Amino acid sequence: MGDDAGDLLALSPDEILARVRFDSAGLVPAIAQDSTSRQVLMLAWMNEEAFRATMTTRRATYFSRSRQRLWVKGETSGNSQQVVQLRLDCDGDAVLLLVEQQGSACHTGEQSCFDVGGADVR
Amino acid sequence: MGDDAGDLLALSPDEILARVRFDSAGLVPAIAQDSTSRQVLMLAWMNEEAFRATMTTRRATYFSRSRQRLWVKGETSGNSQQVVQLRLDCDGDAVLLLVEQQGSACHTGEQSCFDVGGADVR
Repeated sequence: MGDDAGDLLALSPDEILARVRFDSAGLVPAIAQDSTSRQVLMLAWMNEEAFRATMTTRRATYFSRSRQRLWVKGETSGNSQQVVQLRLDCDGDAVLLLVEQQGSACHTGEQSCFDVGGADVR
Repeated sequence: MGDDAGDLLALSPDEILARVRFDSAGLVPAIAQDSTSRQVLMLAWMNEEAFRATMTTRRATYFSRSRQRLWVKGETSGNSQQVVQLRLDCDGDAVLLLVEQQGSACHTGEQSCFDVGGADVR
C-alpha cells in the first residue's frame, strides 16, 4: 500500500502516463472533484494528449467524445478548473482531479453536472 | 435547471433507467463517494441489470468487465456499500452513488482506490 499521494510525486509526467491504462478507444474516465467543497463536479474523458496537457498546464483538459477533439475546460465559458492534485486509481484506469472550479462546472449552470437529478434510495 | 435531488424522486426505477445513456457495450461509469467524508472511493461500471439491482437492493452493484458478470460490492470482502443517494449527470452518461462504505473500498486495503497514488500539480 502506497502512502497517500506519495507514489506519483517522484515520477516524471512520462512515468505517470505509463501507469495509465487507456481503453480501446485510447480514453480514460476522469472525475473532477472540488478541492474545497469536495463536491463531485463532473465526469469527462482524457486521451493521452489531454492527460499530458492537464499535467503540464495544470488546467483540466479533456477529450470531447462528441466533438472528437481536445477540450480545455472553460475555454469558451471561462469556467476553468485549476488542478490541485491528480490521482490514479489502483489499476490505473480512472483519474481523479482535485480542482479549484471557476464558476459552475456544468453547462446547465448548475455547480455540478450531478446537480440535475438525484434520488434518495434510503 | 432542476432542483437539487428533486428530478428523479418522482420517477419509478424504469423511468430513471430510461434516462441512463449506456455506452455501446451497455455500460455506464459509476462513481462511489463516501456520503460522510465526501471522499471519492472508486469508479466502477454498471450495466442495466446492475443499475436496477442497485436501485432495488440499495447495495451498490456493479458489472465486472474483467469477469463479465454482476458484482455486488463486498460480496466476498464484506466491504459493502449502502447506497444513500443515486444521481445522474446532466446528459445521463455517468452515475454518482453516495454510499455508506463498510470497511475499505479498495481491494488493496486502502480506504479509496484513489489512495494508491497521487501527484500535487500546484
